[in-house]
Amino acid sequence: MNKIYNPKPETWSSILERPTKTVDDIEATVKEIFKEVQKKGDEAVAKYTSLFDGVEVDTMIVSEAEIQEAIVAVPQELKEAIALAKSNIMAFHRAQKTERVAVETAPGVSCWQEKRPIQKVGLYIPGGTAPLFSTVLMLAVPAEIAGCNEIVLCSPPDKEGKINPAILFAANLCGVTKIMKVGGIQAIAGLTFGTESIPKVYKIFGPGNQFVTIAKQLATQCGVAIDMPAGPSELLIVADNTAVPAFVASDLLSQAEHGVDSQVILVSTSKKLIDAVADEVATQIEALPRKAIAEKAIANSKLIYVENDTIALDLINEYGPEHFIVCTANDDFYIDEIQNAGSVFIGNYTPESAGDYASGTNHTLPTNGYAKNYSGVNLDSFTKAMTFQKISEKGIQNIGKAIEIMADAEGLQAHKNAVTLRLKALENGK
Amino acid sequence: MNKIYNPKPETWSSILERPTKTVDDIEATVKEIFKEVQKKGDEAVAKYTSLFDGVEVDTMIVSEAEIQEAIVAVPQELKEAIALAKSNIMAFHRAQKTERVAVETAPGVSCWQEKRPIQKVGLYIPGGTAPLFSTVLMLAVPAEIAGCNEIVLCSPPDKEGKINPAILFAANLCGVTKIMKVGGIQAIAGLTFGTESIPKVYKIFGPGNQFVTIAKQLATQCGVAIDMPAGPSELLIVADNTAVPAFVASDLLSQAEHGVDSQVILVSTSKKLIDAVADEVATQIEALPRKAIAEKAIANSKLIYVENDTIALDLINEYGPEHFIVCTANDDFYIDEIQNAGSVFIGNYTPESAGDYASGTNHTLPTNGYAKNYSGVNLDSFTKAMTFQKISEKGIQNIGKAIEIMADAEGLQAHKNAVTLRLKALENGK
Repeated sequence: MNKIYNPKPETWSSILERPTKTVDDIEATVKEIFKEVQKKGDEAVAKYTSLFDGVEVDTMIVSEAEIQEAIVAVPQELKEAIALAKSNIMAFHRAQKTERVAVETAPGVSCWQEKRPIQKVGLYIPGGTAPLFSTVLMLAVPAEIAGCNEIVLCSPPDKEGKINPAILFAANLCGVTKIMKVGGIQAIAGLTFGTESIPKVYKIFGPGNQFVTIAKQLATQCGVAIDMPAGPSELLIVADNTAVPAFVASDLLSQAEHGVDSQVILVSTSKKLIDAVADEVATQIEALPRKAIAEKAIANSKLIYVENDTIALDLINEYGPEHFIVCTANDDFYIDEIQNAGSVFIGNYTPESAGDYASGTNHTLPTNGYAKNYSGVNLDSFTKAMTFQKISEKGIQNIGKAIEIMADAEGLQAHKNAVTLRLKALENGK
Repeated sequence: MNKIYNPKPETWSSILERPTKTVDDIEATVKEIFKEVQKKGDEAVAKYTSLFDGVEVDTMIVSEAEIQEAIVAVPQELKEAIALAKSNIMAFHRAQKTERVAVETAPGVSCWQEKRPIQKVGLYIPGGTAPLFSTVLMLAVPAEIAGCNEIVLCSPPDKEGKINPAILFAANLCGVTKIMKVGGIQAIAGLTFGTESIPKVYKIFGPGNQFVTIAKQLATQCGVAIDMPAGPSELLIVADNTAVPAFVASDLLSQAEHGVDSQVILVSTSKKLIDAVADEVATQIEALPRKAIAEKAIANSKLIYVENDTIALDLINEYGPEHFIVCTANDDFYIDEIQNAGSVFIGNYTPESAGDYASGTNHTLPTNGYAKNYSGVNLDSFTKAMTFQKISEKGIQNIGKAIEIMADAEGLQAHKNAVTLRLKALENGK
């Protein structure tokens, strides 16, 4: 772990720099697969499933029988944990519903805004060693609350052509309408263009490796929206002597085990805490099954000492962490003043893993500094705001003149005419 | 105008097809300019301003003196019209403010969501013959309400090195913090990377030509967010015999005068109305100064007869128009059931130009079918939703077990540890 004392503001950007990757070579591959899936549909998807996942599946669509099998296979204890998490996520995301916003901006001019669901959404759930059923909850629960008609989940099959039972169980529990055994670039391409089996959707959500990330980027150039650009997961903790070093260390490690490129930063106004946390990390890391991964991430981690909370805050706002744990005597200062963070965890008993699984907040959050300009996934991610207006005869008489003058000044005569005709009709008693 | 009677659903997608453009050649130019601006800053920007706008400006930053000059130059009548529009836009966007959403999802588990402003935003206003000061209002007013710290406006200088006074007047009126004489690709590149004069921003808003559109797309690959992908403006009207043909024609023409690639569609359950509108269009178009443009757009326009409102609605939802005018005996049916539209205009006295200028709704709307997955610009476009959570000792005891089970099932031991440590500390009375 790199201890850095009192870094000068002009060095912050280099200290806080995130690893970047060149993607030019991946891009060509992704484009090629997109073209092929667009042209050949299921045939191309099957080809790449065989190539990348090393398995041939008879049908991509997960059957009702497979779902029933999965329900049986998931241990009762896990089912109950998932039910509790779902209930909390549901409570928090339901509360995010907004009512119609209606304003009579001028007499006779009624304007309103309503959110309506995005009709077709695609949820991508990575495969691999860790079956991310928690991400199923984070995406499917708000999609169902929003009222999306079609909720399509894609996840790569394993060597037996199966999807992890916990993923199937969670998808079935949370209103997913179609589960597909397809992963990687070919899944994103399928959701983008539609194939014989995969429905074309309007927005794609979910995490993934580099290939999936680039594929989602390309999808945005093909008319599909995505939740947000992705990058390696990251955690920044600000803590002082009121924090328990063992807890802080456990949080840093829970981030570090995600991947070798995970970003882990501790900012503190206490050198004593920094030393104690470093010691704790060294001890706790020994017992981790994913020690090899965590060690690499921890080697790149930073423990930054600064003189006071104001400097700490400035530095944190410049970084814009995905996860931000606050555990200081001055928590309210940070809560009130933080501008750029995905999700904020407050106090000694709020580990990041609470938000990752079960507190109710969403764990699909902006990484890579995107907390400066993107929201984490929330209920509104599954809706679009539409506006409506209805103007009465009186109303157009009230604002018509202003429209005519402005349209005229912008040189748009037909825009003006549309008002002039109506005003004249009213003058002439129609 | 192309009259189409009772098209079969399987032909809808080809009838409603929007023109697409290949962008590969533009992309190379945009990438080159981005690289140069990133490397050379103001020097590169000045070079391209000279090349594309044909003018050398001493300083890109609009001075206080220039603003004062502009205030004097704008006619009083136009000032008043702008003030009225601003007041309506402000009223409607202020009403969109959302309160903090707070839920105790489980005893001792407090979660809340707050919107915080995106700190630095860039507004792009095109130059050319039509000075789009109305777009200044549509972008700067919500940015100011949201509380963005830095609101940077870029607009290309004319041959005299000036920006239209109405644009300067509106920018000054609506809280823009810095006005820059810079347009096109070089403006978007400047806002993306920052230069000596142009501040780096986190999100870029506003319309533009093909070059600006591609530049905004590229910006999203450089860490900057954008309002939405852009395409030619479009209007779909559904009308029956309760609509006034002259009004309908004037609305179609106000859309058609935007550009030769504007999309103009009328859907009706009345052949009589279709014929009457076609006649009115032929008459009204003669008087338009932008007749040449409107004629080309109208030549590609479609008048579609369908047998009933249900078919009409399905067709409209498949298209997803940017602007949607409803003028029928069944308005409520369309208002309730429309799923994909940017902004909806209801009744005989609600022309699209009302929303373009002064009703209060935003005129920056999703085109090109993006109404299916993107919101138009609204107050939330200038904020990001952040989540917060604070868990008490009791709270972690309530949900800790579930987190442990889920983390374990996902194979993330350190995530589990972060909870286990805390639960043990509580068991041991710390």
